[in-house]
Amino acid sequence: MKLYDFELSGSCYKIRLLLNMLDLKCELKSVDFVNKEHKSDAYLALNPFGEIPILEDGDLRLRDAQAILIYLAKKYDASGQWFPDDAASMGRIAQWLSTGGGEIMNAAGARLVKILDYPLDLDKLQAGAHRVFKIMNAHLADRPWLELGHPTIADIACFPYTAMAGEGGIDLTPYPHVLAWIERVKRLPGFIPMPGVPAP
Amino acid sequence: MKLYDFELSGSCYKIRLLLNMLDLKCELKSVDFVNKEHKSDAYLALNPFGEIPILEDGDLRLRDAQAILIYLAKKYDASGQWFPDDAASMGRIAQWLSTGGGEIMNAAGARLVKILDYPLDLDKLQAGAHRVFKIMNAHLADRPWLELGHPTIADIACFPYTAMAGEGGIDLTPYPHVLAWIERVKRLPGFIPMPGVPAP
Repeated sequence: MKLYDFELSGSCYKIRLLLNMLDLKCELKSVDFVNKEHKSDAYLALNPFGEIPILEDGDLRLRDAQAILIYLAKKYDASGQWFPDDAASMGRIAQWLSTGGGEIMNAAGARLVKILDYPLDLDKLQAGAHRVFKIMNAHLADRPWLELGHPTIADIACFPYTAMAGEGGIDLTPYPHVLAWIERVKRLPGFIPMPGVPAP
Repeated sequence: MKLYDFELSGSCYKIRLLLNMLDLKCELKSVDFVNKEHKSDAYLALNPFGEIPILEDGDLRLRDAQAILIYLAKKYDASGQWFPDDAASMGRIAQWLSTGGGEIMNAAGARLVKILDYPLDLDKLQAGAHRVFKIMNAHLADRPWLELGHPTIADIACFPYTAMAGEGGIDLTPYPHVLAWIERVKRLPGFIPMPGVPAP
């Protein structure tokens, strides 16, 4: 397998996390995100959306971090823990895949403004991030994981940009249940840190 | 089953479409979207994200159109056509679920500006919609359906706001393969129209 990867990308980190938790080997192909290699013709030929990550596994090439999480869990998770094979579990988890690729990306955008000076509306992004973290905090008040009572790809999809919210100027102090969940994720077997997401 | 529904919502229409194609009966609970019933306390208690649709099936309550499509296909599609049960197919389809709930929502936003006078950036939304329709047009140049050579929930997830793009002032004439795909979707068994998406 080959992952088109950028070390500082939370979307790529999601994949590296699940790969490591599933004890899978994968070649990392570094994409020069800062210099916009992901908008080059060569990269756009692999993913016309011009986004990282991409996963290649044999003849299969997949874009979109959430789609890649589904693929890896379905293909390589013999335990069935990460994306259980029943309709209700899949539906419940898929809600949070949408959130991880959707509302939580407000926090990713805020981080891009802060660390790479992207010309985006920081106030709007931070407000959007606070909205979703408030919802997650209430949701996690009486459960340890986002769904099913155990870790799933829902948690993986939502973790990176939540854990790095501070880099976008978003204070998680008002969300103690989110903070506790972040610590739980960090203590999962196979957890790996990244810059901005230190080991516990 | 009960669907919290708004007739003019493309996100709700996705669900009505798949329900009808699977020949499933479902109670429709109309949500007064124009008067923001989806932001009321009663509705937020059902879905704190304040979005339509919601599907209830027995004790299960799901938010997010894409999550609901996964649930319905996995639970009720005996043919396995709509969301086949192998990792590669699921990954391929999930890419477009992200697109349907992501980039294509630019077209949904443009439509909200045009028909409900939402205070959003119309130029930016239209530009985002054109970006994704250009990609879809190239993708569909040599294939009839988004993935797997047959209709799947990828097509259902991407169809409504593409078919209604004109209501957001987005001209699809430059995208003939997208237009041909729209016509193919409209000719699927069980297709139902909605205002803005006439029968073929």
